[in-house]
Amino acid sequence: MSIRVGFDILENTIKKALINAGLNEDRAALCAGIHTESSADGVESHGANRVPRFVKYVKRGWVNPNGEPELVGKKGLAENYDGNLGPGITNAIFCTDRAIKLADEHGIGLVTIKNTTHWMRGGTYAWRIAESGKIGISWIATESCMPMWGSDEPSVGNNPFCMAVPRENGEIVLDMAMSQYAYGKLGVYRLAGKQLPYPGGFDEAGNLTSDPGEIEKSRRILPAGYWKGSSFALVLDLIASALANGKSGAELDDEKKGSCTGCCQVFIAIDPYLFGDKESIQRKWDYRVQRADSAHPSNIKFSVKSPGEGTMERRKYSMENGINIDEKIWVQIKAIADGDLNIVDIS
Amino acid sequence: MSIRVGFDILENTIKKALINAGLNEDRAALCAGIHTESSADGVESHGANRVPRFVKYVKRGWVNPNGEPELVGKKGLAENYDGNLGPGITNAIFCTDRAIKLADEHGIGLVTIKNTTHWMRGGTYAWRIAESGKIGISWIATESCMPMWGSDEPSVGNNPFCMAVPRENGEIVLDMAMSQYAYGKLGVYRLAGKQLPYPGGFDEAGNLTSDPGEIEKSRRILPAGYWKGSSFALVLDLIASALANGKSGAELDDEKKGSCTGCCQVFIAIDPYLFGDKESIQRKWDYRVQRADSAHPSNIKFSVKSPGEGTMERRKYSMENGINIDEKIWVQIKAIADGDLNIVDIS
Repeated sequence: MSIRVGFDILENTIKKALINAGLNEDRAALCAGIHTESSADGVESHGANRVPRFVKYVKRGWVNPNGEPELVGKKGLAENYDGNLGPGITNAIFCTDRAIKLADEHGIGLVTIKNTTHWMRGGTYAWRIAESGKIGISWIATESCMPMWGSDEPSVGNNPFCMAVPRENGEIVLDMAMSQYAYGKLGVYRLAGKQLPYPGGFDEAGNLTSDPGEIEKSRRILPAGYWKGSSFALVLDLIASALANGKSGAELDDEKKGSCTGCCQVFIAIDPYLFGDKESIQRKWDYRVQRADSAHPSNIKFSVKSPGEGTMERRKYSMENGINIDEKIWVQIKAIADGDLNIVDIS
Repeated sequence: MSIRVGFDILENTIKKALINAGLNEDRAALCAGIHTESSADGVESHGANRVPRFVKYVKRGWVNPNGEPELVGKKGLAENYDGNLGPGITNAIFCTDRAIKLADEHGIGLVTIKNTTHWMRGGTYAWRIAESGKIGISWIATESCMPMWGSDEPSVGNNPFCMAVPRENGEIVLDMAMSQYAYGKLGVYRLAGKQLPYPGGFDEAGNLTSDPGEIEKSRRILPAGYWKGSSFALVLDLIASALANGKSGAELDDEKKGSCTGCCQVFIAIDPYLFGDKESIQRKWDYRVQRADSAHPSNIKFSVKSPGEGTMERRKYSMENGINIDEKIWVQIKAIADGDLNIVDIS
């Protein structure tokens, strides 16, 4: 069961929980704000739901609450950092802001980081770049949790890939992972006793299925676009680990630590007005988006939406009605805020 | 029916055909080489098969055989060209080589072009960047030929997106379009009387189907990854048309000209050794690829392959055994080479 909790209450409770986990006040405030925003935007699986797991990783020593990005390389428009296993959010926000700054100076900024930890919602950073007025592109290399196409064992990451456009009438943001459905989404359907809308993986006999529980058992989630998703994931891994000069997914697999612990990330910011004036580019974007959104709907009950538009609607609803949160997760976060760090990760 | 034709014979015949279409000898040689290579790599639909359509577009005035890229903007690592509706291949090769040069100077190079025409196989340019030793990223904005998710009419492009990694033991190249299957592929299955291996679109009643003929009738090809593919396509369109300061897909739709006529393209080259030495990056890539390729296969008869590896096997086979080409297309190309420009596009 889910309940709705006000933004400030959720944010303050997460902040207290993170201070108890060892973050200083500023870092706890930054991370709490981002966890809360992700849940407000409807991405609960990578928002508030991840707080208990984050605390568990800090306790295990897989995340260093005081780790900070350290410059290890700089060439013109490009900078490379060592994340020192600091919190994924504080590291990634730092890199995002550096990419924006480098794009101010050079037209394009490329920032890479190695030895960082889970950045939570991938879209956070591309949204932030777009809100600064730049085009944002970001992705990660991470451990294997999805079979390569043609394989029946986890052999490639389910990497997020994000692209964001700073449209003044509403940012347009692609925030996709390489699997058709995340494991978190499978759990949501299984708990609700529902089948997935479309096949999301293979059962243990190797048949494509929409049954979430069967896919959880086989660990054979389906790459988005079948062969396309796992190919894309591998190439993202190769490029990120090279540009960040850090660990590839295979090297993370060897370490056998949790999700995105010690991973590489890439942040690119580009000035959209390199060759066109702002007014005409914004007009071009409005026209393109309006044409996409006014495409004839296949079901008269639903309108066509460009990526990011649904997120903004959910954000508005959450601000007015409170943020949706699973009751059990909410109990856990309150317990951590009250000083009990012995939680079990149920996300 | 298909036959196999030697590389040199196919290349020389295409070259003669393109000279008859109005290209000068150098440009005809360049384009013929690339059409032939694409067919050799197994991408016939965007290789030799496209020669008759290209000739038709030149005859209509949609492609200017003498159009050349003209510099219209330059800012440090970024350059913007007007393609003057020249041949897509000669324009794109020029931009590719400029992006490589800019990456030599700045670590990263960004080249955009507007008012260009179909670049044929998208992977050509990412492969070329990788073969030069750089990481390549490229994509285009183009006219609508795929429904947005939730729509039943063409409302977004089926844009190619390519990423290439310069691994010395074999380039790893993602060359994907945003639909699950290209229209060309549907035709191949229909002519063979076969169903698609996986659903590839909707029939006219709105049901997901694997019947290629039904999808061709409805024009509702399936975006790869369902909602993911059409979202990705729209964002690629918005970014390419802004950075090239050219026409978006919606503006191309208004013009009602053929495929990719007057479109925008983006070429990015990145030095992979910005922060790591060449030997360790190459070793990292080899290890990652070897781990992916040695994943346990779901069918013992097939091995797992990283993207690009299948292409290289097909290339080798074509060089040894001749290039596969549809007999009817081959008759058409020979007719154009003999001076008959009145061909019908059957591709």
